[in-house]
Amino acid sequence: MQQPKERQGIDGEEQVVPMRVTSSIDHDEAYFESYARISVHEQLLKDKARTDAYLHAIIRHEEFIRDKVVLDVGCGTGILAILCAQAGAKRVYAVEATHDIAHAVNFFKIIVLIAYFVVLLIRQTSKVVEDNNLSNIITVLQGRIEDVEIKEQVDVIISEWMGYMLLHKNMLESVITARDRWLKPGGLMLPSKATLYMAPVTNTKRYEESINYWNSVYGINMSAFKPLAKQSAFLGPCVETITFENVLARPQVVKCVNCDSVTIPELRSVTESFKFNSTVKAPLHGFAFWFDVEFGPSPMPLSIRYPTSSVDDHPPVDSQTRRDPTLLLSTAPNVLPTHWQQTLIYFFDPKDLKQDQLIEGRVTLSQNQASSRLLDVKIAYDTGGQSHVKYSFLR
Amino acid sequence: MQQPKERQGIDGEEQVVPMRVTSSIDHDEAYFESYARISVHEQLLKDKARTDAYLHAIIRHEEFIRDKVVLDVGCGTGILAILCAQAGAKRVYAVEATHDIAHAVNFFKIIVLIAYFVVLLIRQTSKVVEDNNLSNIITVLQGRIEDVEIKEQVDVIISEWMGYMLLHKNMLESVITARDRWLKPGGLMLPSKATLYMAPVTNTKRYEESINYWNSVYGINMSAFKPLAKQSAFLGPCVETITFENVLARPQVVKCVNCDSVTIPELRSVTESFKFNSTVKAPLHGFAFWFDVEFGPSPMPLSIRYPTSSVDDHPPVDSQTRRDPTLLLSTAPNVLPTHWQQTLIYFFDPKDLKQDQLIEGRVTLSQNQASSRLLDVKIAYDTGGQSHVKYSFLR
Repeated sequence: MQQPKERQGIDGEEQVVPMRVTSSIDHDEAYFESYARISVHEQLLKDKARTDAYLHAIIRHEEFIRDKVVLDVGCGTGILAILCAQAGAKRVYAVEATHDIAHAVNFFKIIVLIAYFVVLLIRQTSKVVEDNNLSNIITVLQGRIEDVEIKEQVDVIISEWMGYMLLHKNMLESVITARDRWLKPGGLMLPSKATLYMAPVTNTKRYEESINYWNSVYGINMSAFKPLAKQSAFLGPCVETITFENVLARPQVVKCVNCDSVTIPELRSVTESFKFNSTVKAPLHGFAFWFDVEFGPSPMPLSIRYPTSSVDDHPPVDSQTRRDPTLLLSTAPNVLPTHWQQTLIYFFDPKDLKQDQLIEGRVTLSQNQASSRLLDVKIAYDTGGQSHVKYSFLR
Repeated sequence: MQQPKERQGIDGEEQVVPMRVTSSIDHDEAYFESYARISVHEQLLKDKARTDAYLHAIIRHEEFIRDKVVLDVGCGTGILAILCAQAGAKRVYAVEATHDIAHAVNFFKIIVLIAYFVVLLIRQTSKVVEDNNLSNIITVLQGRIEDVEIKEQVDVIISEWMGYMLLHKNMLESVITARDRWLKPGGLMLPSKATLYMAPVTNTKRYEESINYWNSVYGINMSAFKPLAKQSAFLGPCVETITFENVLARPQVVKCVNCDSVTIPELRSVTESFKFNSTVKAPLHGFAFWFDVEFGPSPMPLSIRYPTSSVDDHPPVDSQTRRDPTLLLSTAPNVLPTHWQQTLIYFFDPKDLKQDQLIEGRVTLSQNQASSRLLDVKIAYDTGGQSHVKYSFLR
């Protein structure tokens, strides 16, 4: 295989990577891997529910942001920093951390090239800032939030830090660190609040397709593969989209994070009890998790800024809490799908539920000992007179 | 993270893996990785065009298979071996090789658990054979084709060995080895022939979505990311589905493999010249590759076995060669999609083509030096008075 430089030279392309890599597979792997990361940012930007929610939050808080100092934690392509600058911020610090690397090293041993990509990304992010004539407002900084230096306090911290099951990847820790280092008293956290929910689910179609499929494959009894298929399909959490038709009981809150006050230690392990009453007779296949985040208290009555037709585009106001729907990003079933979808933890075998049957237990989400960015999940539950424990692991 | 044994014990599940693994990330990775492989087999079996083609081939050659000895190279779940046994074979040897491992080791260093999975798979494949009362006919063997011992010559070798761009993964080499070791003179190879095609393609939608997207992201000029996006999207080959509307000229043959006579050395590097005339004025975005395989000469006139209505379900007979459509598995655009889809090698930038413009050059597919299972692709081509070379790499 040719070195990237030669490859690009011959094809007459922009010379993005002037470095030379050897032809070993590990390096080729790393080379592809590092480029793949821009496509992650593309996916995030194209997640309309996500990016629109941040855009709307910035617009709704424009009065607060104007002439203020903003910090964007984990800026990526810089979109939130730029939107804040466009909303009138007088200065924006956009920090892209490298803490993905420790994680990547464990798996792929490609620290050098990934680090190189972060430098590439941040260099291009600076170029984007320049191209949009915002260099006088936005300062792009590369480094871990613990390591970078910002020589003033900030009025607003904005960050898109949420992972699967809210806490996966543990990026909230960097946001907390930033808050404790630089946020002025009374400063604004965007988002300001995050809530993780869980609910018992039934999903016969999924079980039929992945497990019972093996009962008869072209008329052949292949049920001997079912134990392997169960491990393959249901050992780890599944990121997939369900609907409320799969949900067997009213969802419950697992963790409510107040971004103004949450501390790093309380994220190390989160335990919550649950008690569900199945609304129907159905097989229980597992539990679903999803989250929503809120972007601060409504700074002004909705009607002032939004005509009714615009508000109608958003999910209805939550009847319980009367939360402002334009300041809410929800990853629940049946709302505009996001790249987070829902996270499902399935059992290897379904448990039959009667109507009104109780399912009670405790769920624990713990940072993995080997890497705080990974999440161990333990669900201990009783139903129908039997006790079960399901362990899972979000890589 | 808990050991699998404990996890399964507590959840009251089948105890599939009695081994203990440490809690290191590498092992957790490997643990998930090894189970994921059954889902690959599920995907293959559910590829209806693929599995139906083999089923039809076996039915059409039933007269030849009856009371004969069959060898299934890379048997996986054992489906082809079982179908041959059901078609009347007197003995079937089903061999599952472990040559994936050398490849996996390079990337993930998880040889032990992958090897363990192969043993698990093969044990379950034997169980499937037993459950279908075919133990007296089918012998399941675990090992590389070079290492296993079969104490007789065989009449039929059946194998689903095709990779992306036909030659990726180089499994054909094992089939050739098996043929040279055990196939009787006049024996039947299934498939008997394989042909790799290429054609120039246009795909403006793809380029717009992946590259020009960055021109304006929420109104922000992010074109500074375009060089990274081009690398990310178009450095490696893309496995995706196109239609003949994307195809700019009549496809040409890159390699025709006669399975009765092909040799291992001729697969190390395949070079072919091409000359296309664009049928329309359009931007040239790259080249598409696909293949088809044929399952032996038609053993009897179609009308004897198939009513017309059944034949109508299949792609039309190729007008050039009058090939029997029921003995053809095609991965071309516009036929029933397969998991192979088509393989696209895109340029970083499109080249404008006039109608009837000539595109000529040479394509070379070479086994990667680090692993013969990976494929280096070089396309050197001239068009519109300019010379270009595109290197790519199928991992």
